[in-house]
Amino acid sequence: MPALNVVPFVSVDNMMRLVHAVGIEAMLVRLAAAIAEDFSRWDAFHKTPRIAAHSPDGVIELMPTSDGHTYGFKYVNGHPKNAAGGRQTVTAFGVLADVGNGYPVLITEMTLLTALRTAATSALAAKALARPGSRTMALIGNGAQAEFQALAFRALLGVDRLRLHDIDPAATAKCLRNLARFGFDLTACASTAEAVRGADIVTTVTADKRNAVILGDNLVGEGMHINAVGGDCPGKTELAPDVLRRAALFVEYEPQTRIEGEIQQLAPDHPVTELWRVLAGSAPGRTEARQVTVFDSVGFAIEDFSALRTVRDLLAEHPYYEDLDLLADPDDPRDLFGMLMRAGPPRLVA
Amino acid sequence: MPALNVVPFVSVDNMMRLVHAVGIEAMLVRLAAAIAEDFSRWDAFHKTPRIAAHSPDGVIELMPTSDGHTYGFKYVNGHPKNAAGGRQTVTAFGVLADVGNGYPVLITEMTLLTALRTAATSALAAKALARPGSRTMALIGNGAQAEFQALAFRALLGVDRLRLHDIDPAATAKCLRNLARFGFDLTACASTAEAVRGADIVTTVTADKRNAVILGDNLVGEGMHINAVGGDCPGKTELAPDVLRRAALFVEYEPQTRIEGEIQQLAPDHPVTELWRVLAGSAPGRTEARQVTVFDSVGFAIEDFSALRTVRDLLAEHPYYEDLDLLADPDDPRDLFGMLMRAGPPRLVA
Repeated sequence: MPALNVVPFVSVDNMMRLVHAVGIEAMLVRLAAAIAEDFSRWDAFHKTPRIAAHSPDGVIELMPTSDGHTYGFKYVNGHPKNAAGGRQTVTAFGVLADVGNGYPVLITEMTLLTALRTAATSALAAKALARPGSRTMALIGNGAQAEFQALAFRALLGVDRLRLHDIDPAATAKCLRNLARFGFDLTACASTAEAVRGADIVTTVTADKRNAVILGDNLVGEGMHINAVGGDCPGKTELAPDVLRRAALFVEYEPQTRIEGEIQQLAPDHPVTELWRVLAGSAPGRTEARQVTVFDSVGFAIEDFSALRTVRDLLAEHPYYEDLDLLADPDDPRDLFGMLMRAGPPRLVA
Repeated sequence: MPALNVVPFVSVDNMMRLVHAVGIEAMLVRLAAAIAEDFSRWDAFHKTPRIAAHSPDGVIELMPTSDGHTYGFKYVNGHPKNAAGGRQTVTAFGVLADVGNGYPVLITEMTLLTALRTAATSALAAKALARPGSRTMALIGNGAQAEFQALAFRALLGVDRLRLHDIDPAATAKCLRNLARFGFDLTACASTAEAVRGADIVTTVTADKRNAVILGDNLVGEGMHINAVGGDCPGKTELAPDVLRRAALFVEYEPQTRIEGEIQQLAPDHPVTELWRVLAGSAPGRTEARQVTVFDSVGFAIEDFSALRTVRDLLAEHPYYEDLDLLADPDDPRDLFGMLMRAGPPRLVA
């Protein structure tokens, strides 16, 4: 029986070791499977919109959920100006706990893990919504999330042709460099219009914190699937409203996406379908080849839960973690003070 | 400049070292001062009731708050059956973060720290509400929190006579043993009635998770101050409603205490005073010597914030922490994937 005071901790270094031990594409497939499994038992989860603390510079959020047996939450920030100071725009860590006794069972970095689970969710949605046989993806926005998206779409859908565009050519160059070893057919494009030409799937994952039209209506061809990842908070969107109006719209958790997603631009009763219904077979996904489908992704707590439990399970086979002495564990639970005193300097005996 | 990827972590062991380095009574005084300071700038804080995930066995809560510059939250569980399995009923850890960039600046155990801040808050309230010159305290409930309460009341008010009672004599024996070295005048009592005899202050800190009458109206004498710590969640109270009806009632944050505190037994408009108003001088505390005062304590996020910032400040002088590699820190913030790939196995060059 493990000591009651310690909690396994996965550092950034150990998360990287874990991903390489499993293999990055295998990891993405495994995450997608866990997310699909948890989305398919949607009603088992206690769902709540994220708890956000907004400030002029950004937001700090807590995203908890529970399936009644296991509880998980993620701490995540979003600070667009961070990159200028050498910091990540988004960093995160997460905790998994046992609902039965309230003790944490895992603490892990989630900056990398969030990038992986976001990409896995995108690919999972596209697998259900894009035209079968989709092989070409336009990747608009070539920042921190781009390569993860690319690999997830290859691992889950077989996408092997990428058309890249970013307003900053250095970002595209970085992306081309990072993806060179993976055998994609890669094309750098000077504009979004050029990038979407011939694309079956368009992924928008830009970082601008405002309502921007990354993808105008004239660029969206029949049968396209749009994976809208970057519009993920109030006042930040990427798609022209006209694109949304002629598409079939799919979301993670409707109450949250109405506030944070692309659909904040539409009437509050504009019809959308929660992705889990498609995965569970209780709602149709794409109904015809000419249809435009949009996955309006904002990131939801259950995806983090799926990611956290996947990491916990992987640690049994790949023990890339340290034990953190996080929990007070007196011999007698009522004797917290005695534990503290016994740890002190030796008492002088008269 | 410290590395951007690491976050100071205070383990249980290091928290114990820190408390001993500062001195437990000095630590309680310092915590009370920080809480008084933060309560006095009450309006600076973003306040929200705690976010609770209830289950048949207990509750897991997140308690966030922010003063616009610093953000803090505590993870805390409450599982009454835990003690039977050798676990703490309540364990906690906390995080402090920089609102400007969203990066965590401290992760710490908070099981010990919560016991300390709870006691510091109780003593701070009693200092404002109990009759001047109060020296005798009845301590009803001699579990994990009892000794911390005793020391805080001595450090802040000069309470040096304790009358102890617990339904389990073993708990009282433990408490007597732990407090023997601190020079109190200690009396073990066979009943609550015996314990409260001659007491200026009565502290109730029992663990039963139900509505119980620990303190009936006939036991409450004129001029008493009651420090009700144990009634802290829906369905868990310690005082007879009649005691509350004839007392002046003081709470931390009214919206939360209406749900969780002793006053859940009263009409929702029964008058109460938030403690911060007394500390800030904008509301009276005790108005006459014969008055009965009750501090209906449930624990509030600002107290944890004060405790977290106190620990952060103390680490500068007493570096009892480890660096946790929690945050991904690529050389280029947009190149998260490149960081991951460079950590992988060496690439074969053709």
